[in-house]
Amino acid sequence: MAAFAIHGDIIWTERPESFSYIENGYLVVKDGKILSVSREKPQCEIIDTGSSLVIPGLTDLHLHAPQYAFAGLYMDEELLDWLNHHTFPEEGKYADTSYAEKAYSAFASDLRKTATTRVSVFGTIHTDSTLLLMRKLEEAGLSGFVGKVNMDRNSPDYLTETLDESISETERFISESSGFEYIKPIITPRFIPSCSDELMKALSRLSKEYNLPIQSHLDENLSEIDWVRELCPWSDSYGDAYYRYSMLGPRSIMAHCVWLNDDEIKLMRNTGAYIAHSPSSNANLSSGIAPVRKYLEAGINIGLATDVAGGSSLSMFRMIQDAIACSKLRWRFDDTSGKALKFSEAFYLASKGGGSFFGKTGSFESGYDADIVVIDDSKDSTVLYDSLSIPERLEFYTYRHPDENIIQKYVQGRRVL
Amino acid sequence: MAAFAIHGDIIWTERPESFSYIENGYLVVKDGKILSVSREKPQCEIIDTGSSLVIPGLTDLHLHAPQYAFAGLYMDEELLDWLNHHTFPEEGKYADTSYAEKAYSAFASDLRKTATTRVSVFGTIHTDSTLLLMRKLEEAGLSGFVGKVNMDRNSPDYLTETLDESISETERFISESSGFEYIKPIITPRFIPSCSDELMKALSRLSKEYNLPIQSHLDENLSEIDWVRELCPWSDSYGDAYYRYSMLGPRSIMAHCVWLNDDEIKLMRNTGAYIAHSPSSNANLSSGIAPVRKYLEAGINIGLATDVAGGSSLSMFRMIQDAIACSKLRWRFDDTSGKALKFSEAFYLASKGGGSFFGKTGSFESGYDADIVVIDDSKDSTVLYDSLSIPERLEFYTYRHPDENIIQKYVQGRRVL
Repeated sequence: MAAFAIHGDIIWTERPESFSYIENGYLVVKDGKILSVSREKPQCEIIDTGSSLVIPGLTDLHLHAPQYAFAGLYMDEELLDWLNHHTFPEEGKYADTSYAEKAYSAFASDLRKTATTRVSVFGTIHTDSTLLLMRKLEEAGLSGFVGKVNMDRNSPDYLTETLDESISETERFISESSGFEYIKPIITPRFIPSCSDELMKALSRLSKEYNLPIQSHLDENLSEIDWVRELCPWSDSYGDAYYRYSMLGPRSIMAHCVWLNDDEIKLMRNTGAYIAHSPSSNANLSSGIAPVRKYLEAGINIGLATDVAGGSSLSMFRMIQDAIACSKLRWRFDDTSGKALKFSEAFYLASKGGGSFFGKTGSFESGYDADIVVIDDSKDSTVLYDSLSIPERLEFYTYRHPDENIIQKYVQGRRVL
Repeated sequence: MAAFAIHGDIIWTERPESFSYIENGYLVVKDGKILSVSREKPQCEIIDTGSSLVIPGLTDLHLHAPQYAFAGLYMDEELLDWLNHHTFPEEGKYADTSYAEKAYSAFASDLRKTATTRVSVFGTIHTDSTLLLMRKLEEAGLSGFVGKVNMDRNSPDYLTETLDESISETERFISESSGFEYIKPIITPRFIPSCSDELMKALSRLSKEYNLPIQSHLDENLSEIDWVRELCPWSDSYGDAYYRYSMLGPRSIMAHCVWLNDDEIKLMRNTGAYIAHSPSSNANLSSGIAPVRKYLEAGINIGLATDVAGGSSLSMFRMIQDAIACSKLRWRFDDTSGKALKFSEAFYLASKGGGSFFGKTGSFESGYDADIVVIDDSKDSTVLYDSLSIPERLEFYTYRHPDENIIQKYVQGRRVL
């Protein structure tokens, strides 16, 4: 592929502490990768976006596609009630691929319009609907992972597989999803309460056999944790149970981690597993606030996640807002010795932090995947616009006009919007 | 004025516990007041909005117009630093009425597009700019109060009045604002740290002499509270200081009240003063989470507020979201014995709760002011739309499409959008 360059006001985070940015710069892309960022005009095709903001594509490390239809509804309940009263009945509908076609079309279409370029998504237990979801996301230009969910216990009849079904359908899912180029399969035990030990062991084996990543939930809610303690008396903790299933590693995403104990923190750090930090969801479902500062200092891999429909919004900018706000509240309530997340840190988590799960993604360093979002932030702006620095413009946009006025979007160098 | 009726799916909260609603109903308006809501088609002009949602106009009990230009910026600082580094320098610019003209036009124009019909707004110390703000809000069709801010100590030179100036300019402000029909003056000492005892006593006297309401700030931030303790050694508390200035009553709004002690709770309840609960701002500035459940149980008057630019959004729907989310987090961190705010309660606070400060406002009971917002929520909706109840449709809209697709807006019976 011939190189091309996007001209604009370019900003990214190589490190959490601060932004890197170049006003009037050129972001050069070759073969789907970032070649360079510079002030010098390169010898290649130039896509001139004026003084638009040019930022890395954002990563949503955890969300449930079948729950999007009711994102923003039923917020008055805690996790386990919310699952039983709303989530499971809705997920049951995806046995019908014509319902899935309608609902997943809306999901993929709305996700396409956001600044998100990478996702790790839960489907349902239904293989055919989940394959359909992969196709919709591939067509929408996204890149990432989708999982057929596994559940063989403690679930309503209509969402309970037998052990054998769960394994054989997972193998069919892996086999039939091999044709997608950008959307890949991921092993997806829902969470320990809904998967028997035998199923977990089998899924762990499949992940190794097919070299696939794994996603699940960990330490979201105190009642859930108590339940896992009963279900896995042979483990030291919820996290330890995943560890003993050989499910923690640099290709694992554990959603939430609101309540990791010190041993679990060590397990997450030592294995390199990722936390999908979901601040909106954790507030909406009364789960709490994950101590992100503590996890970052422990050296754990962390990205941000909407956790739709625990979170009501697909916007990663809203997740940046909420990660910062929740971190400040935790600082106030629990531990004023550390520091709350600041804007550059939260942006880092939403871009390079979560993006690193997918390889070199989420930054504009040389060799990174060319996931790029171009925003005309001059529209609907503030009277102060002309005096703002590029990081200030990005902060203003994040809080005031998230996901609006996106004029171009590239995923691995392909223009998708 | 001839009566007219709006036909649509009508929903409101008479009580916090639950919604009242009528599908395919008629909301009859006469002389700027609600006459009735019913299923029967009345004998008057019908404005048919199909199955649009018809809700009461919302009230923003506390916001700073001059801070709107930087709402969404500089979120990495706590209250007192944020005031000194960003807020005061920006407010200084409003000495120039041509700057005010530009900035307040944008503010009024954006506020007009929201579901907010009632406001209580801080201007700056500058009388002429504040009069200009009143005109802009009047032209935008809003109703409510605007205050020229008073500051005669502990403020930068360019925002410090002498005692005499502060009093005489306040009198001029009261006199010159008498021509507005919907936007009225309110006495506005910024907060105790920036107003001398003499000034507070004079302002209290003016409020009685001209029969004007009062707005200020109370117990927002722990450092601020420590400061007031030093400044007012003669008072038992920050709240008691306002009480001794005779500034607490049913026509007073105290913004924030994150940290009221038990005596202050009694003072607020016994005087009937209003709390402007500002959950977004209190998170953004690391102030904390006001214990709203406790205040409601104590019988204190409460409404919601954006506190722009502590809050970054003008949307009262976003405040409903944040009031609920923060209430859940406080429940989790501080006191799981009570219950977090639920959706109907937060909607009540944003409509009738805060609206009652302005009289009979924020509900569709007979005799209430005809503040009405009509929303076409069928656009950009969910695949579940047809199966949703009217309260569910309102919840979905609140979380997913706040302030979008507003097709009509009425304030005291006047159509303003």
